[in-house]
Amino acid sequence: MTDKKVIRQRLRMMRTAMRESGLDYYLVPTADFHNSEYVSDYFKAREYLSGFTGSNGTLVISAEEAGLWTDGRYFLQAERELADTGIRLFRMQEEGVPDICTFLKRNMWEGQTLGFDGRVVTAAFGKRLEAALAEKKIRIAYERDLVDAIWPDRPAFPCSRAETVPETYCGKSTAEKLAEVRKKMREEKAGAFFLSRLDDLMWLFNLRGNDVRYNPVLMSYGFITETDACVFLQAGALQRETLDGMQRAGVGIRDYFSAGPFLREYFLGGQRRGAAVLYDCEQVNYAMFRIFRDYGNCREAANPTELLKAVKNETELSYIRSIYLKDSVAVTKFIYWVKRAVKEETLTEYSAGAYLDGLRREIPEFLNVSFPTISAYMENAAMMHYEAREDACSALEADGMLLVDSGGQYLGGTTDVTRTIALGAVSQGMKEHFTAVAVGMLRLADARFPYGCTGRNLDILARGPLWDRNIDYKCGTGHGVGYMLNVHEGPQSIRWRYRDGAREAVLEEGMIVTDEPGVYLDGRYGIRTENVLEVKKGLKCEDGQFMHFEHLTFVPIDLDAILPEQMPPREREALNRYHRAVYEKISPYLTGEEKTWLAEATAEV
Amino acid sequence: MTDKKVIRQRLRMMRTAMRESGLDYYLVPTADFHNSEYVSDYFKAREYLSGFTGSNGTLVISAEEAGLWTDGRYFLQAERELADTGIRLFRMQEEGVPDICTFLKRNMWEGQTLGFDGRVVTAAFGKRLEAALAEKKIRIAYERDLVDAIWPDRPAFPCSRAETVPETYCGKSTAEKLAEVRKKMREEKAGAFFLSRLDDLMWLFNLRGNDVRYNPVLMSYGFITETDACVFLQAGALQRETLDGMQRAGVGIRDYFSAGPFLREYFLGGQRRGAAVLYDCEQVNYAMFRIFRDYGNCREAANPTELLKAVKNETELSYIRSIYLKDSVAVTKFIYWVKRAVKEETLTEYSAGAYLDGLRREIPEFLNVSFPTISAYMENAAMMHYEAREDACSALEADGMLLVDSGGQYLGGTTDVTRTIALGAVSQGMKEHFTAVAVGMLRLADARFPYGCTGRNLDILARGPLWDRNIDYKCGTGHGVGYMLNVHEGPQSIRWRYRDGAREAVLEEGMIVTDEPGVYLDGRYGIRTENVLEVKKGLKCEDGQFMHFEHLTFVPIDLDAILPEQMPPREREALNRYHRAVYEKISPYLTGEEKTWLAEATAEV
Repeated sequence: MTDKKVIRQRLRMMRTAMRESGLDYYLVPTADFHNSEYVSDYFKAREYLSGFTGSNGTLVISAEEAGLWTDGRYFLQAERELADTGIRLFRMQEEGVPDICTFLKRNMWEGQTLGFDGRVVTAAFGKRLEAALAEKKIRIAYERDLVDAIWPDRPAFPCSRAETVPETYCGKSTAEKLAEVRKKMREEKAGAFFLSRLDDLMWLFNLRGNDVRYNPVLMSYGFITETDACVFLQAGALQRETLDGMQRAGVGIRDYFSAGPFLREYFLGGQRRGAAVLYDCEQVNYAMFRIFRDYGNCREAANPTELLKAVKNETELSYIRSIYLKDSVAVTKFIYWVKRAVKEETLTEYSAGAYLDGLRREIPEFLNVSFPTISAYMENAAMMHYEAREDACSALEADGMLLVDSGGQYLGGTTDVTRTIALGAVSQGMKEHFTAVAVGMLRLADARFPYGCTGRNLDILARGPLWDRNIDYKCGTGHGVGYMLNVHEGPQSIRWRYRDGAREAVLEEGMIVTDEPGVYLDGRYGIRTENVLEVKKGLKCEDGQFMHFEHLTFVPIDLDAILPEQMPPREREALNRYHRAVYEKISPYLTGEEKTWLAEATAEV
Repeated sequence: MTDKKVIRQRLRMMRTAMRESGLDYYLVPTADFHNSEYVSDYFKAREYLSGFTGSNGTLVISAEEAGLWTDGRYFLQAERELADTGIRLFRMQEEGVPDICTFLKRNMWEGQTLGFDGRVVTAAFGKRLEAALAEKKIRIAYERDLVDAIWPDRPAFPCSRAETVPETYCGKSTAEKLAEVRKKMREEKAGAFFLSRLDDLMWLFNLRGNDVRYNPVLMSYGFITETDACVFLQAGALQRETLDGMQRAGVGIRDYFSAGPFLREYFLGGQRRGAAVLYDCEQVNYAMFRIFRDYGNCREAANPTELLKAVKNETELSYIRSIYLKDSVAVTKFIYWVKRAVKEETLTEYSAGAYLDGLRREIPEFLNVSFPTISAYMENAAMMHYEAREDACSALEADGMLLVDSGGQYLGGTTDVTRTIALGAVSQGMKEHFTAVAVGMLRLADARFPYGCTGRNLDILARGPLWDRNIDYKCGTGHGVGYMLNVHEGPQSIRWRYRDGAREAVLEEGMIVTDEPGVYLDGRYGIRTENVLEVKKGLKCEDGQFMHFEHLTFVPIDLDAILPEQMPPREREALNRYHRAVYEKISPYLTGEEKTWLAEATAEV
């Protein structure tokens, strides 16, 4: 923990800087320039100023006060880390606690100025701030990163080496992808398209990098017109190979940090024939948004790249199928190991997770984990965002259940799988919940539906067995998964809630999506079973084009926690069918002992 | 059939009238001023001019040509009825057939004028015409009903007597309803609300009438502000009682035909303090829409009355439950009768339907049928809009299946129920489909779901058993039902298709909704089983407020066509449970013979 004195000192320096810049309040969120799921050290300004190390939090500073907003996961930790810093904790979502907009509206004086670095604030949040503060005529100064000046040993801006994805792996050249994007642009009557979403950029230009933890992406922007395309990258990321590849694809390269000035110039230069520039307001940061709004003739729209990226091509799918098999072998071996080892040696959540990571590392195509392995025992598994740390985690007992949610980044795909494993005796209640979760997972996987359905039509298949028991889980049932990219990807999802005006994506052949219902009982236990499914076309007839899923994940579902008599005949048959496939596909890669165990673990029920 | 010479004569007169008015094209649709589901004789101008008697069609006339657009249900009939009239048939939805907008855009000359009576054209269609014709600078003249002048014996404008719903039946006074509407208006920051939807008007002012066939409504408009409310009715509809009732509720009465001028004056008079007038663009006609657009400060929004009307209050629900029981008794008696009578006497679709109507008529609260009874045998049941006519319908045989979809208007509720009845031997294939439909109906009825779900979340429960067989039906699974009002009511529905921007209604306690999956095999047979369900609250717990349905309809599902071994255990149990309830509730109202039969017809499977 950073010394509290140091924190107080840093806040004093910030206040001096604010005074010198004429800023009355300053806001420091937790994000990079692209609102990535993880932020690298360079972007941990909020942690540097406050000492609070949680993954979610926003700091607000004025001459007299400072406040930090974070969510329920971090209340205890934040209390500890903020003590004696003079920073007040705002417990988000708790009754009577104002959100940031309300707080600023209430506390700022008419005519004052709010400062923040517009590059680390999303356009959506920036617009909410504007709306809240307009009435009091509060000025917003978003052009300067005030923290930079008072952070002498700031970590370097992330700049990994750009790697070109070999064409044998991506199945489609950048030139072909650009043609598809331009077709969509013409449909939208857009003269240009500004792309700021990192995984879309990587997909389009067949590049990968390592600028965001777990996400194999590069800090980048893209600008595409009917005739030209250009990618903004850091000079330090470039290699000969990248330059050649981009040149072959007819793509220009410009400096990453020149994207803003480039756009301003483009707009001021008259913006060719006035055709609108398309950009995705959900993805762009506030500073970029201001260029669009203040200078350009622009139109907000969903990234045309998002859907194109989500529908995997046959090359990608064949690598995905093969890598999911290898990944499933590792998880299956892990289950065999942990169920025995827990009886023989001292295991912790952390050591078990590390063992699984080790099994994945042995796969030749392995590059990295796709997110931090969640290894959560009993009540810890009821916490959605629990992360075991080597120095702070539970020991495993030969009893109860261990939830393991994990995945890998491979040359050939990105995986995501969850199994909840009985380590010994399991109560009848846990078995009932485990069985209901398995029924839901299998029922969704077994769905037959006409083309045109979205995740909102299907979600009830996974949740129904829980809803029948007056149980619901607070998260979605499924999300898209990238190909050698981010483990969370849109636009498709499996969710149920209606939100006025929200766009839904039709499930297209070639999409892949997770299927992960769960039961989370606070302070008791958590259960989740997650497979990844591929969307396939079925029969086409006069009533429509029918669709279905096929499993990509082949890992046994723990029969030690299944109550076969509670499964409807159809899902019981689906479980047996699935387990036959698991044995058939996985057993060739196992040792004799493992194979014997797997035969039992996939026996007909 | 009207003499073809007469039709040609009428068209000549129209063309003269058009010339005199400076109109180059004139459009005659099939609608009343409120886009009601049925039109009364006064509004059958299209039939008068063309001789075509179908329920859907639009006539377009110019000096040289005339065309009639109708849909696939009516192609054969229209060919026959339009022959020798000089009117060309445009088969809607057929390949290469232009829609009306495209046709007019193509055929009209720049600067010409299109005429129509803006009161019988929806605002939505009028806006589409505007958009299509703007480029050619075609003027739209919507102020005159040209047909009126050349239609000497035109039937009278519908003007039934206004009846006040006794407060014991409506459960809520107009004053209370107005308070609720005004609360919603304040939420929408609306200064006034203009209401043009007839069933909403009847609900709000606790009135009923008979101006639209099957819909117990009065031609009317309403205008509500924070302090005043006024209903526009025809003088001829008024009785002392109505006047008194409105006065007690603090509602002014104005003449129905003065609604347009009133609005214009309101807007020209400065429109109090500039607060916007709310209106529902989906419901208002083009002439009214033009007043809003040309004179007013207005805002399109869903009728605040629609949702209030859809959520039935406890008084309404208790009448509904009781009237559905009586209605179910009639339908049950009908099934008993038809299954025997078909073996003993000559029956037709029409005579069977008439027998059922007769049984309903014996119920003391009966007022009318709620829509024309559909009685369709075998292949006729595969046609969604089939209507048997006394002089043109199929004879029933003691074999195959009869689909009967029917309902009543009662003092105490509006009903809607469908049963498909085995009249004798039924093939295995038909039984399989019948069973799948029953499973779907029962599965939806048995759903448990958290508050917040809409019909799009649940639809798959009813369709899933058919989707599993690569079968889909082309219509929704369910719609709301009025209370002593229209049999089709929103805003809730059970559907699956995603339409960008479409609003969905959350299922609220007190809503009632139909549950009517079906199988329709062209040229072979049609099967539908329809119950009406009431939405109820279940357990409230930390995962949410759980909801479920309860049946309002209690009519046996024909076991002669059920394959119990094909039913999943849960739905088989649900069928048995439902049938126990049917026997318990219905048998007390049956004769001895009927009762014996019902015991068998509801026996456990």
